[in-house]
Amino acid sequence: MSTLTLISQNQCFGGWHRRFRHHSDSVNGDMTFAVFLPPGCQPETPMPVLYWLSGLTCTDENFMQKAGAMRTAAELGLVLVAPDTSPRGSDVADDADYDLGQGAGFYLNATQAPWSQHYRMFDYVTEELPALIESQFPVTNLRSVSGHSMGGHGALVCGLKQPERYRSISAFSPISHPRQCPWGEKAFRHYLGDDQDSWKEWDSTELMSRASITLPTLVDQGLADEFLQQQLQPQHLQQAADMRGYPLTLRQHPGYDHSYYFIASFIEEHLRFHYQHLMA
Amino acid sequence: MSTLTLISQNQCFGGWHRRFRHHSDSVNGDMTFAVFLPPGCQPETPMPVLYWLSGLTCTDENFMQKAGAMRTAAELGLVLVAPDTSPRGSDVADDADYDLGQGAGFYLNATQAPWSQHYRMFDYVTEELPALIESQFPVTNLRSVSGHSMGGHGALVCGLKQPERYRSISAFSPISHPRQCPWGEKAFRHYLGDDQDSWKEWDSTELMSRASITLPTLVDQGLADEFLQQQLQPQHLQQAADMRGYPLTLRQHPGYDHSYYFIASFIEEHLRFHYQHLMA
Repeated sequence: MSTLTLISQNQCFGGWHRRFRHHSDSVNGDMTFAVFLPPGCQPETPMPVLYWLSGLTCTDENFMQKAGAMRTAAELGLVLVAPDTSPRGSDVADDADYDLGQGAGFYLNATQAPWSQHYRMFDYVTEELPALIESQFPVTNLRSVSGHSMGGHGALVCGLKQPERYRSISAFSPISHPRQCPWGEKAFRHYLGDDQDSWKEWDSTELMSRASITLPTLVDQGLADEFLQQQLQPQHLQQAADMRGYPLTLRQHPGYDHSYYFIASFIEEHLRFHYQHLMA
Repeated sequence: MSTLTLISQNQCFGGWHRRFRHHSDSVNGDMTFAVFLPPGCQPETPMPVLYWLSGLTCTDENFMQKAGAMRTAAELGLVLVAPDTSPRGSDVADDADYDLGQGAGFYLNATQAPWSQHYRMFDYVTEELPALIESQFPVTNLRSVSGHSMGGHGALVCGLKQPERYRSISAFSPISHPRQCPWGEKAFRHYLGDDQDSWKEWDSTELMSRASITLPTLVDQGLADEFLQQQLQPQHLQQAADMRGYPLTLRQHPGYDHSYYFIASFIEEHLRFHYQHLMA
């Protein structure tokens, strides 16, 4: 088990926000994550964990700084864990565009050079990071997963591919059908190669349409989101859910855009949704 | 009255966060500010206003993104206004250091060249901006003022120098005695010159010790604040309040630092404090 290096810590709502760096075997390099430990989170009172996956260009910091999630997490007794969106460093493959490479890991396991050397975020998020969290912090092994945009895609893919690992899934403004939108097509072509059959394994709409195990799933989408039509396309996810009978609740909110102002407005409802299923 | 140019807007908690740029006569140049208009803020139901003054290096954005204030503001029906921390632009005097010049206006009226040409943030914040807000938005003329660090100093100075303009004052981690701390001494020497008697007019501890009109005042200070001993020194403010019989509530919080994680933890209490006095 790798050693955690504390980067910084801040008291917040009576609990602690802490940032760590550590060596990750999954990504073959260093990873950074943030954790919020509510007041009273101790070995004799372990708490369940919500994993948050951020969007393009983000780090572990955006959610902790901007979502306003810690207030409700402190009240409920829910640990929050927010990993960085990719491996980083001068030895990690990158691209000049914001939507590929560092900051744009897409929560998958890349199979194509040069990306396959480090970009194994799916293994990191679903296996290595939970194992690390559960060995190093006073938490239960009850997990839920949420995220925004690229991280909404990530949350859905994690929960759909590894349903036994999570109690519930939620997403804000997810990239719902990445194999058929510009962000996803570009990322999948680089990370996974030209065989588009391989893309289906990382496409929420595809995975939901043939899910064998189902999890309670909440998706919020703003109707003034500038990426709604071209990139996010939640209607495909809804169609897959309808076809499969998947327990998806898709809520559409007039006036709200793609920003953290939207996330902040509804994060409390997501935390209560997850908590209800974690404690059921 | 100057024309407002809308920079951006986001729906948030059922209300609107909007950023504007406009020409300011006070600072002889352009200023930027953000406003949060709660749901139901309309000409037939005008709402009171809390002015928020940010700290060194900040713009209008830090508070709106990180404080988590809009949730409670939306619930109460309290308009939030957050101006930038200085005039900006290539024609505005600046300094390579973060604690002088652009981003470091200290909410005073500079008397020394080259600063006196634009740095009149006190007039802007106490007079021009409220007049603009009250002419352009559905608000009452009831105002309170709050801020953080340099902006906590600003909030105290505004409320102490212009008590008839405000109903209540609050601050997080204010620079409480700027004429005797490094940040304040440096700023005052450049903006106000070498005559230290002139500095007393911009020093909260000095102003509180001889206030003729008093306002309900709430100050929160984290005891793990890295700037507490050298820069902030709230004990001087407490001594002045005790001497004068000023209604200051100074709360000290073990473990909390100088960051927005501290502000987020207690902003709801500040908003409720101001709302109570605004509606009294």
